[in-house]
Amino acid sequence: MALIVQKYGGTSVANPERIRNVARRVARYKAMGHQIVVVVSAMSGETNRLLGLAKELMAEPDPRELDMIVSTGEQVTIGMTALALIELGIKAKSYTGAQVKILTDDAHTKARILNIDQHNLKADLDAGYVCVVAGFQGVDIDGNITTLGRGGSDTTGVALAAALNADECQIYTDVDGVYTTDPRMVPEARRLKSITFEEMLELASQGSKVLQIRSVEFAGKYKVKLRVLSSFEEEGDGTLITFEEDGKETNMEEPIISGIAFNRDEAKVTVLGVPDKPGIAYQILGPVADANIDVDMIIQNVGADGTTDFTFTVHKNELNKALNILRDKVQGHIGAREISGDDKIAKVSVVGVGMRSHVGIASKMFRTLAEEGINIQMISTSEIKIAVVIDEKYLELAVRVLHKAFELEEA
Amino acid sequence: MALIVQKYGGTSVANPERIRNVARRVARYKAMGHQIVVVVSAMSGETNRLLGLAKELMAEPDPRELDMIVSTGEQVTIGMTALALIELGIKAKSYTGAQVKILTDDAHTKARILNIDQHNLKADLDAGYVCVVAGFQGVDIDGNITTLGRGGSDTTGVALAAALNADECQIYTDVDGVYTTDPRMVPEARRLKSITFEEMLELASQGSKVLQIRSVEFAGKYKVKLRVLSSFEEEGDGTLITFEEDGKETNMEEPIISGIAFNRDEAKVTVLGVPDKPGIAYQILGPVADANIDVDMIIQNVGADGTTDFTFTVHKNELNKALNILRDKVQGHIGAREISGDDKIAKVSVVGVGMRSHVGIASKMFRTLAEEGINIQMISTSEIKIAVVIDEKYLELAVRVLHKAFELEEA
Repeated sequence: MALIVQKYGGTSVANPERIRNVARRVARYKAMGHQIVVVVSAMSGETNRLLGLAKELMAEPDPRELDMIVSTGEQVTIGMTALALIELGIKAKSYTGAQVKILTDDAHTKARILNIDQHNLKADLDAGYVCVVAGFQGVDIDGNITTLGRGGSDTTGVALAAALNADECQIYTDVDGVYTTDPRMVPEARRLKSITFEEMLELASQGSKVLQIRSVEFAGKYKVKLRVLSSFEEEGDGTLITFEEDGKETNMEEPIISGIAFNRDEAKVTVLGVPDKPGIAYQILGPVADANIDVDMIIQNVGADGTTDFTFTVHKNELNKALNILRDKVQGHIGAREISGDDKIAKVSVVGVGMRSHVGIASKMFRTLAEEGINIQMISTSEIKIAVVIDEKYLELAVRVLHKAFELEEA
Repeated sequence: MALIVQKYGGTSVANPERIRNVARRVARYKAMGHQIVVVVSAMSGETNRLLGLAKELMAEPDPRELDMIVSTGEQVTIGMTALALIELGIKAKSYTGAQVKILTDDAHTKARILNIDQHNLKADLDAGYVCVVAGFQGVDIDGNITTLGRGGSDTTGVALAAALNADECQIYTDVDGVYTTDPRMVPEARRLKSITFEEMLELASQGSKVLQIRSVEFAGKYKVKLRVLSSFEEEGDGTLITFEEDGKETNMEEPIISGIAFNRDEAKVTVLGVPDKPGIAYQILGPVADANIDVDMIIQNVGADGTTDFTFTVHKNELNKALNILRDKVQGHIGAREISGDDKIAKVSVVGVGMRSHVGIASKMFRTLAEEGINIQMISTSEIKIAVVIDEKYLELAVRVLHKAFELEEA
């Protein structure tokens, strides 16, 4: 008998029929003798509907009241899921975040979990109940309802698994696991049986949006066994997220590369002809950061004429904002020759823990792209990934040839 | 400075624009220096929508889970109302029933209020906040969310007024007070400046559905000054509900009759030719009550041949159920000649505290109906009302002629 936390996202509980499917799956696990805690999101579209209602009354809604309104989305789903289970003859009980009680700080709309009281849940689990818990929400020390921010239901699932010392936290989504790359782009993409926490972070942050990064970090911190599965398939083991401490790094059977990640959402900003002096990076990026613009890749190259070129990437939506800031506040100040932007770029990354101990991954990647005539505009590396920026129009080609070069296809 | 509880029903908060209107009214009272507690229902249609969702999963939804789902309706409205107030620059804070805490028994979907903790509300009122409280809901001793049943928001308003020792409880609806009869049927109907609690009970239970009966009883028990007003009109004092202890009965200026109530929702069940023996009434009504069918009027007449005819009224929706029970379980047992039903009836009542001390009201009522050729099928009387059952098709005529005969028209 295991204690399993199962988290179902908005598309998995989008309507009564899908909620019935969730209940049937829970029933199968229960029939195996497991104790089950189910965490559900709001029915898909519901959070946006509630947000829209609030914004009709206040353009920037008061955060406490917004949480009061938006948290009802999950409250409806827990009641519905419990009903579907009871209809199947299974003892079930729903819990709001406050009822559990999932104690958070008071940062409404983006609260962080401080503590989870596992007393009520444990008692009900031991009494044979399936506990259905509202994701995304908690309660502060004064009893105010808080929410964890978008995607917070994953975090609720992982945090509950940690608090209850669960054997496994299963995250059900509309994909059946983590793939070597996006199967919609490369039909030969293969589902990974397991992936390390760090690889997952790279893949998630680079476009394989399977799990909320925060929940993966949480799982890593509390050593929660995390598995991604499809809520639309009966069978399949999904992908297990492992941690390096599990000894994976020393497993010689593991492939060197786990997958190819990509991202079309970034744009490139280049500051040309900057006098090469200390403090230039801060003078350029300081004002950008002050404007709350997230910067991803950053590259600086020293030139021959005593000037340097400085390039970074931002989200496409923020390209113009970034360019305006640089032209208004930075260019004259630092004496840069030119500020230019390009939103016709894409980022492709080769990800794998194995590359740490294997030379030649980078050269293989660069050679593969060169053979297809794909020019590399930027390169950035970390311990477990090599990312390049290329012309957007070559993205599909690059992902396909890299996937093949690193032998990631379905065996 | 007074402490006022204002309760707004579903149509008064049906959409963001109407919620803004509610906020503006609250703002006016606040500007007069009053402390305000606002109680709101779910946006109209929302409770039915949620009920429908629940019933898609379970024909007879588990009551605890149903309360979990349905209580979100009011939770959305309190957040929205607080946002509308904050947008007007007014300090406001929403409260679920659990946050207040409105302690109830554990009879889910029809819970009764046991106690209201006024500590949090008082503190926030004293700090200058408008407190916006979810109607219709509470929490049991174990922290489960409960609901008070349909119309329970009125009860929440009155109970809060009692607990906070408020100066007045204002119930805002889509009518601007209690009328001598339904103005849609009799255009000359006059709004009553005040009405006694008992008259109100009769008028409310007989079709003038202005207030939930339970809330009026509650107000009577705790001596809450209750006023019915329109949420769609800027001006007007509505109708004050008084209690006899206020000395109204001795006020000679008061009219004898307050109004004409009516009800089209009842059907008549007649058991003909029952041997006239002790226990017959129980043998007939016992099985009906066991099936949870509410019975309103009950009449029994002794006949000449040693048999008796027994007639009672039930809600039209329950006529067939009642007839089946009588035919299957009762008819043979008691040896009744015939069981018949009629749903083409209507009930008309003349209501007034004054009739206790004035003879001739009944005869005037019967004569008025006779003059129009309206046959009376059943008669039932109480201290403050005379009710008759007539053919449904004469209902409008009966109400109009009685309204005129008792001189209830607008002066």
